[in-house]
Amino acid sequence: MKIHIADGESFEAEEGKNLYELLKKNKIYLTASCGGKGSCGKCRVIVKEGTVRVESYGKLTTAEREQGIVLACQSFPEGDITIEIPIESMLTVGDKIAVSRTRDLFELLKSYKADISPLISRIRLTLPVPTLDDNISDLERLKRGIEEKGLVLEYPYHFVSNLSDSLREHDWNFILCYQKESNTALSIEPPVEKPCYHGIAVDIGTTTVVVYLVDLCDGRVIDVGSTYNSQMRYGDDVITRIVHATEGGGLKELRHAVVNDINDLIRPLTESHGIDPEGIESVVVSGNTTMVHLFWGLNPAYIREEPYIPTANRFPVWQARDAGIKIRRDAPVYSVPCVASYVGGDIVSGVIATKMHTREELSLFMDIGTNGEIVIGNKDWLMTAACSAGPCFEGGGIKNGMRATNGAIESVRIDPETLEPEFKVIGDVSPIGICGSGMIDAITEMFLAGIVDQKGRIRDDLKTDRIREGEDGLEYLLYSGETHDIVLTQVDIENLIRAKGAIYAGASLLLKEVGFTFDMIERVYIAGGFGNYIDVEKAVIMGMLPDIPRDRFRFMGNTSIAGAYLCLMSEEMRREAERVASMMTYMELSTKGTFMDEFMSALFLPHTEMEQFPSVKELVFKER
Amino acid sequence: MKIHIADGESFEAEEGKNLYELLKKNKIYLTASCGGKGSCGKCRVIVKEGTVRVESYGKLTTAEREQGIVLACQSFPEGDITIEIPIESMLTVGDKIAVSRTRDLFELLKSYKADISPLISRIRLTLPVPTLDDNISDLERLKRGIEEKGLVLEYPYHFVSNLSDSLREHDWNFILCYQKESNTALSIEPPVEKPCYHGIAVDIGTTTVVVYLVDLCDGRVIDVGSTYNSQMRYGDDVITRIVHATEGGGLKELRHAVVNDINDLIRPLTESHGIDPEGIESVVVSGNTTMVHLFWGLNPAYIREEPYIPTANRFPVWQARDAGIKIRRDAPVYSVPCVASYVGGDIVSGVIATKMHTREELSLFMDIGTNGEIVIGNKDWLMTAACSAGPCFEGGGIKNGMRATNGAIESVRIDPETLEPEFKVIGDVSPIGICGSGMIDAITEMFLAGIVDQKGRIRDDLKTDRIREGEDGLEYLLYSGETHDIVLTQVDIENLIRAKGAIYAGASLLLKEVGFTFDMIERVYIAGGFGNYIDVEKAVIMGMLPDIPRDRFRFMGNTSIAGAYLCLMSEEMRREAERVASMMTYMELSTKGTFMDEFMSALFLPHTEMEQFPSVKELVFKER
Repeated sequence: MKIHIADGESFEAEEGKNLYELLKKNKIYLTASCGGKGSCGKCRVIVKEGTVRVESYGKLTTAEREQGIVLACQSFPEGDITIEIPIESMLTVGDKIAVSRTRDLFELLKSYKADISPLISRIRLTLPVPTLDDNISDLERLKRGIEEKGLVLEYPYHFVSNLSDSLREHDWNFILCYQKESNTALSIEPPVEKPCYHGIAVDIGTTTVVVYLVDLCDGRVIDVGSTYNSQMRYGDDVITRIVHATEGGGLKELRHAVVNDINDLIRPLTESHGIDPEGIESVVVSGNTTMVHLFWGLNPAYIREEPYIPTANRFPVWQARDAGIKIRRDAPVYSVPCVASYVGGDIVSGVIATKMHTREELSLFMDIGTNGEIVIGNKDWLMTAACSAGPCFEGGGIKNGMRATNGAIESVRIDPETLEPEFKVIGDVSPIGICGSGMIDAITEMFLAGIVDQKGRIRDDLKTDRIREGEDGLEYLLYSGETHDIVLTQVDIENLIRAKGAIYAGASLLLKEVGFTFDMIERVYIAGGFGNYIDVEKAVIMGMLPDIPRDRFRFMGNTSIAGAYLCLMSEEMRREAERVASMMTYMELSTKGTFMDEFMSALFLPHTEMEQFPSVKELVFKER
Repeated sequence: MKIHIADGESFEAEEGKNLYELLKKNKIYLTASCGGKGSCGKCRVIVKEGTVRVESYGKLTTAEREQGIVLACQSFPEGDITIEIPIESMLTVGDKIAVSRTRDLFELLKSYKADISPLISRIRLTLPVPTLDDNISDLERLKRGIEEKGLVLEYPYHFVSNLSDSLREHDWNFILCYQKESNTALSIEPPVEKPCYHGIAVDIGTTTVVVYLVDLCDGRVIDVGSTYNSQMRYGDDVITRIVHATEGGGLKELRHAVVNDINDLIRPLTESHGIDPEGIESVVVSGNTTMVHLFWGLNPAYIREEPYIPTANRFPVWQARDAGIKIRRDAPVYSVPCVASYVGGDIVSGVIATKMHTREELSLFMDIGTNGEIVIGNKDWLMTAACSAGPCFEGGGIKNGMRATNGAIESVRIDPETLEPEFKVIGDVSPIGICGSGMIDAITEMFLAGIVDQKGRIRDDLKTDRIREGEDGLEYLLYSGETHDIVLTQVDIENLIRAKGAIYAGASLLLKEVGFTFDMIERVYIAGGFGNYIDVEKAVIMGMLPDIPRDRFRFMGNTSIAGAYLCLMSEEMRREAERVASMMTYMELSTKGTFMDEFMSALFLPHTEMEQFPSVKELVFKER
């Protein structure tokens, strides 16, 4: 019996097992908060050919059933079948390319000369065995031993409840685990020859959630998982999420959504590496201020109302059980500190990942996620601002948009003569959709080929079958497959221009406010989940990046997860993140009268003021 | 319809309600961990006359049913009935005499010049309202305000999770509750004109559990509840309990038993005073070391094994949810510190209740509970030791023994001519049983009247119907009622002599060890649950108390609960308790070769060495 994934691989399957299990065996992981018990309704797949025996449709609507949608965990193939997996159902786990890209992180940590010092500290203790003459209680004996090492700790109930047996089991010779930030004793462990501890770094993006499974002893990223943030069903950006949170029960829904996403990723990550989830002993989360609030279930309402106040920017170190993360119950969870309501821990992470705050040179940091955030400064000062770009570079709000994972078109060339496209797909498989870097390429190539004009309008007077009328008006056909097409629609292009316009306008205004111009910037760091390599030239032509010498740009990938990794590995990095958060001065752009002008001017390809883009001006004139 | 309690009151009852409810309405409280849902099987009563409709017998055995035992919460009277309530089923709540005896406690607190400073501290805060210019996060704003008051706190997840709404609800003007010992923020409250907070002081005795409901603002004891420690079904003394704890699941059983007892008492105490149990915001427990370990679910096994090590003597302040006490979840629970495995917080409580550690004079403190503990010393030093007395002075192991509550015979006179007894019953009701003070009276009167000899044997050659053959050999009939008799058996007398012998031998040996004799003691403090006033003269004649001038004796009642009350009310008293615990030097008597000799000599009335009891010697010779 064979299972064929539409536009993807095929594999042999055992009979009598459900689709969720069969896919998992072949390392295709579906989201399933319930672990495949039919209750969460998330592991949806579409049966395209063949039949499956369905035990339960759960809460699927009639309309959904008619489309062939089933819950994988409730469906048993009866012979060869072909299925399609909607991207919302996919977890990306075990992506070797993604893991290989993490190799430099440990080097980055070393470049800070930071020790390995995770959230749980350990000391070896050997206590004198009690006698009639030295008969103090077990807890007092332990305290005495700990105080001799210069430590004063708190002893929570959970720790003491099993203390007497633990001490004797280990013959008064053991390792004490404690949490330094909260000065709390956590547990007693046997001394081991080759210690091996695991932690997870989490980037909670508005659109995507990324989890790194990390070996805390050698700093190796064992594996990487990512998925869409399921909060997306409640709104695309932070503002709509905040609005949802303030509606009855909304906060709980949003919290559960993202916590389930993280748990969903932890399950296959640990399973496939034979690691007990209980052995995951620390977590660092990095995200924008609203995401971190929603993760902890804190009311984000006041982030949105003037004077824009979050519950916290610095979060105490709480525990996995407080967060609802299904690992060791008392695992400390550190949140990378935030700066203000609209500049969060993801940006603080970005700064420490770039090290811009350690250098003399003037740098600009741009995080092109669903929120666009900008930081400018050097080792002496840091200014920051935010502008809402929307989720399109991460695949949200774009008809065939997707994250930068296997099957995503990541680069595009369009022949200016034939208007025919060529493209590269991540993982060299059939394309499923298009990711941020592909979109930047596509729109720029369409502009250069004359398919769209400076205002981003698709021309309807060109002789090509590639331009056609679609559901959302005109669209450009990038790929036509057996089961689906991949297009870029007029609406997609308008969204992309608004997104790049917001980013450029934000950076431009922040620079003006501090009295600089783009050409004074010595280094531009670009971060974001739009793909891993964007073509600078094209991003400049599009008007997203400033028209300055191309060698000043550095692509950093996901710096939020990089910062989370650094904080997971080292106490010095946590202190560094806190120092950076204090250094950063937030500027509220939306209250500046000039922001709207800047934004409107940027809603062109590349810009209404062509003198800001001299090299593009030259190129366009040359091409025409 | 009338309900008649055998040998007690009668009252009118509504139809259609179960017996548990009907009794409760008349302020007769039965133990019922399940709250009257038929699942705990504790609210047993015996139907003597009349019929009840039984909905369920739960786990009652056939033999039990045949005796007329029913579960009160599952039984509906069908007409007039007479029932008997076994003392194990009784909670004593709302005992006005018990409450009136607590009146001096606040005076005692004042005599220490101690402030009222319960476990939860409060400060009034008014924070500046956030503005665009002062836009730090809520948590940072709160911290700033708190730090201005000179405090540095930890902020647990639970506290922060609702912070933003709380601050705004109270318009930035509120009271912050925090726990000083653990430096932990607990909650935010509206400012109130007339604050009213409640706490409970708990004495966990091996045999009885006593709870004081206290108004934390004025120090008033609102009400008192007491019940048998249900751990009794697993053994009479600490050793048998420890043995049970080390058997599969035993520790859990013992823990639940005592925690349920406390919860059982809290329910009627709060209900009858219209207090929300969630409003009970702090707890102090005082008990011997084993009892405190069992209360917290800590393995007591190593208390019993040489070198006799408890898990802890000083317990961190943990929370009600850790303990399983059904009040405010994060209510701090303070355990009065213990000294050693066999001298616990109850004795430290005793010392601070007597103030012997503040005086020049040499004092002896004797706690005559199930464990006999002795302290000797003054303001400069304190020595302590323990000897197992057994539960008989609290009613355990004595055929008609009971606690000193309503219905207990508390004093006895026996006419030496007729051998007929006269007695006084607590509450002036028909007698149900005999409490410790009554037993001391009875045995001494029997000795003086010649009913028992110096070895405690009941004589069978006397012309009286009062002496008869019972199930356990000879017995003396104190009271003959319609439904039951009250007797003192040969076995009871042997148990009482062993108990008083252990106490006297312990005190005697401890004195010898420190080089003193009884006549050098300027003050003897007697504590214990044996009754409220024991007749010193008779206790001396019996050989329980030393034969020294009678005006040196002070009866203190339950000093364990008194110490718990002091610690509940004031931080200074908690520090005082800790200081006293450190001052006390424990001496292990059981390892002294001479203890057995001392004990054997004390197994007579009053003692084998009559010269230790000169006044008794004279009296006995005069009488004969």
